[in-house]
Amino acid sequence: MSALVTDYDRLAVMQICLEQQLTQPAVFELVVRELPPRRKFLVAAGLEQALQFLKSLSFSEAENAWLRHQGRFSAQLLDYAHGLRFDGDVDAMPEGTVFFAGEPIIRVTAPLPVAQLVESRLLNLVHFETAIASSAARIVLAARGRRLLDLGLRRAHGSEAALLAARAAYLAGFDGSATAEASRRFGIPALSPLFLRSDAIGVGTLSSLVEAPSTAPGRIVDTDDVLTHRAGLVDAATALRCKGIVLDGVQIDGPDPSARAWSLRARLDAAGLGDLAIRVSGDFDETHIGALAAEGAPIDEFGVCGWLPEDGDATRINASYEKRVTASDAAAGRGRALLQPCMRAGKRVGRTPTLLESRRYHAEQMAQLSETLREAVGESR
Amino acid sequence: MSALVTDYDRLAVMQICLEQQLTQPAVFELVVRELPPRRKFLVAAGLEQALQFLKSLSFSEAENAWLRHQGRFSAQLLDYAHGLRFDGDVDAMPEGTVFFAGEPIIRVTAPLPVAQLVESRLLNLVHFETAIASSAARIVLAARGRRLLDLGLRRAHGSEAALLAARAAYLAGFDGSATAEASRRFGIPALSPLFLRSDAIGVGTLSSLVEAPSTAPGRIVDTDDVLTHRAGLVDAATALRCKGIVLDGVQIDGPDPSARAWSLRARLDAAGLGDLAIRVSGDFDETHIGALAAEGAPIDEFGVCGWLPEDGDATRINASYEKRVTASDAAAGRGRALLQPCMRAGKRVGRTPTLLESRRYHAEQMAQLSETLREAVGESR
Repeated sequence: MSALVTDYDRLAVMQICLEQQLTQPAVFELVVRELPPRRKFLVAAGLEQALQFLKSLSFSEAENAWLRHQGRFSAQLLDYAHGLRFDGDVDAMPEGTVFFAGEPIIRVTAPLPVAQLVESRLLNLVHFETAIASSAARIVLAARGRRLLDLGLRRAHGSEAALLAARAAYLAGFDGSATAEASRRFGIPALSPLFLRSDAIGVGTLSSLVEAPSTAPGRIVDTDDVLTHRAGLVDAATALRCKGIVLDGVQIDGPDPSARAWSLRARLDAAGLGDLAIRVSGDFDETHIGALAAEGAPIDEFGVCGWLPEDGDATRINASYEKRVTASDAAAGRGRALLQPCMRAGKRVGRTPTLLESRRYHAEQMAQLSETLREAVGESR
Repeated sequence: MSALVTDYDRLAVMQICLEQQLTQPAVFELVVRELPPRRKFLVAAGLEQALQFLKSLSFSEAENAWLRHQGRFSAQLLDYAHGLRFDGDVDAMPEGTVFFAGEPIIRVTAPLPVAQLVESRLLNLVHFETAIASSAARIVLAARGRRLLDLGLRRAHGSEAALLAARAAYLAGFDGSATAEASRRFGIPALSPLFLRSDAIGVGTLSSLVEAPSTAPGRIVDTDDVLTHRAGLVDAATALRCKGIVLDGVQIDGPDPSARAWSLRARLDAAGLGDLAIRVSGDFDETHIGALAAEGAPIDEFGVCGWLPEDGDATRINASYEKRVTASDAAAGRGRALLQPCMRAGKRVGRTPTLLESRRYHAEQMAQLSETLREAVGESR
């Protein structure tokens, strides 16, 4: 990974460190000083990506050429950048750890020029995955055992965002992701087999295969019109079955999911399609899902389309990367001893847990959480 | 780019298309049906990334192996995937185009199995960059000529998100990005030389270089404490100057930026540091920036830390990828003729504008925008 995924002023500070011979080891800790409003706990995630970033930290030839071309960096900096590797120590919470304000998530001990250079990307990775995992953990509590599927690819902020969100959500107890590459790369179950969707391409593409009474070939059914086309969905599912195409379920989105799920369930059952599951998709947070689960709506699976919804309370976690005066200062008086050795002199140490192991560890952490902290979910507004 | 950056059910539908011999060319359009509340226009972005994605679309050996390993795909699908390339046509709005509801942004004409496969990633790229460019364009209007800097790396959703946000913001008129890799990759000005920051690492690292009266070596100054440490900032800037370290300015964040900028400006001027610029950073949207610019606060530069802030009105743009019955259906009766040929039979056609050219084109588009549409900015709440 490119060492240039950093703020430009980190390069300027790196040069000053070299000029002033400030190359001694420094200790930094990544910490959340204060929990977001209405949050009682957070879930550590992104540490594996952070370690991979540090392990492969370097400037490529093209990047070194770009640094030279800038014209504002010293020969000393260019020389230092040329051979730069991360050769420091890292201690970190295991992924999936439930943590609280003020508990360091990662501690980096490395020469000051490097330790400060990596701030931006470490925060970038750990902030994002931790925000997702923390939201997902609350959704899992709220869903009361319903299946939960990450459907976030289309509106994620690029593909890396989609893949890391799928990973963090699975770590925190989601059942799967619809993003195929997330399944391949991280072994996350691909829980998105053939659902007849109520949006344009779902019905549009599939209905072009059949000639159901109310679904003309190639007809586009608007998401917004789905309520008036509900008969079309059931007819299309029936027609597809006649054609030998086995659906796993029907997916609906839009307003009033409870009433629509009840109505759809009745119509599917009446049409002999009782084996088709109902998935409801949307920009759900734990409040919506908690309400739907509590009232017992016939929803088999929730598809979460938008991560960190705009009205969410943890789009921003106030994470920072703080310099400690000494290692003993960093270690002293910080309550629970959660950090474990992950890197020594730039090499990974200890066993790297699989994502599934981290997911199980997180589930154990959640099981130990006091009722007070668990109950806050869904009753926070 | 991996063809597996798609929703899993697109693969299932691809298989059905093949089984049912539905491989004829189909026409899809990516369109925003309705503008977000309080938005009068949007700015097209992400099209270059979309074209690069289509140009390089394929399944790698590892991806083909993963598909085989799934056990639910037919030999026909596996064979089709093995040699898959995008060989269709693409027409698209030039990047930077100001557009309105219902105007297609991209039209894809390709065999149905492929045309529907690429939906997820096309939406992923175009939705994100268009959302950023559209927000950035409003911020540019609101800033009334103040410099605007993307500072979003730390809280972006991964590095791809940070790089594409920097690109989209620059396209829409931002002056630069602090992300070094965005500067290298896209030629965006690196507008983040040495600013003394009021947060931990800025003052912490730099003040470890100096012995200013109120800034003990290695002392950590909390962001939250910056108001009480303002003297420390000015003293540190003075001490750094004595040491021969040339700062470009001082960066502050936190509440009440106007009062703090006035106070800081006076203290800097009194200390003979009148040449240092003041940058204010934060989760600004166009309302905040418009208010600060309108009152004439002594702010030289705004640093935007959080893209698509949680209270923003365009975190979600209602973009969809819709199947048209025929190409003539797609082309007919759609008002302005904005689409230009970009790919024919899988090959790029026409000249690809540079990012700087697209930025200028966007500026021309904005200059032609009626006062009504421009004035909406900052008065929308």
